Amino acid sequence: MQDCIFCKIAKHEIETEMVYEDDFVVAFKDMNPVAPVHILIVPKEHVNNFYELATNSQKALIMGAVTDAAAAIADQFGTSDGFRLITNNGKDAGQTVFHLHFHLIGGEVLGAKLI
Amino acid sequence: MQDCIFCKIAKHEIETEMVYEDDFVVAFKDMNPVAPVHILIVPKEHVNNFYELATNSQKALIMGAVTDAAAAIADQFGTSDGFRLITNNGKDAGQTVFHLHFHLIGGEVLGAKLI
Repeated sequence: MQDCIFCKIAKHEIETEMVYEDDFVVAFKDMNPVAPVHILIVPKEHVNNFYELATNSQKALIMGAVTDAAAAIADQFGTSDGFRLITNNGKDAGQTVFHLHFHLIGGEVLGAKLI
Repeated sequence: MQDCIFCKIAKHEIETEMVYEDDFVVAFKDMNPVAPVHILIVPKEHVNNFYELATNSQKALIMGAVTDAAAAIADQFGTSDGFRLITNNGKDAGQTVFHLHFHLIGGEVLGAKLI
């Protein structure tokens, strides 16, 4: 998607410090963190949202990579005992960038904090 | 896990109305819903949390099934335009049942509502 900011980040067309990268996903710090640790995990392939991922033939590999990314990030930031993974699907759920992404937040005791 | 309530539900040892089931996951209504639609998606295999899933050889298949389940539930409950998927990992994130589960909430405009 030509004008998709997460596509540009995934292709390294926008300079971004990656905290994790493999064949299927990249991960980087959210620019507006809501917790001490707030990382976005983003598939490299453009998929609008989690609902649409279900029709993608790579869904299992992509979600396996999201799993690996979350564990690696938890190790890297010391949050393996406490993190929340969230994806907002559609505007009614607060999705603002229409390229599938997962918020990983942690680094404190999480209360009713939401993405 | 002998005393795990989600293992018992997944094995149909506790009577529960399933809204989705395949080889890898079951899904059923949360007993304490925080939104008009509040479904739990639970792998059949006992995995403590998302962090530990990363070391499970079935992780890609399980997460592919979670993806299918979310889309099927969104279709079933009419929330494909607005749902949030959340997993809480560890006690600092508010995890209370230590068998991996994903909350799917929707059915209204979601604000700062959290699991």
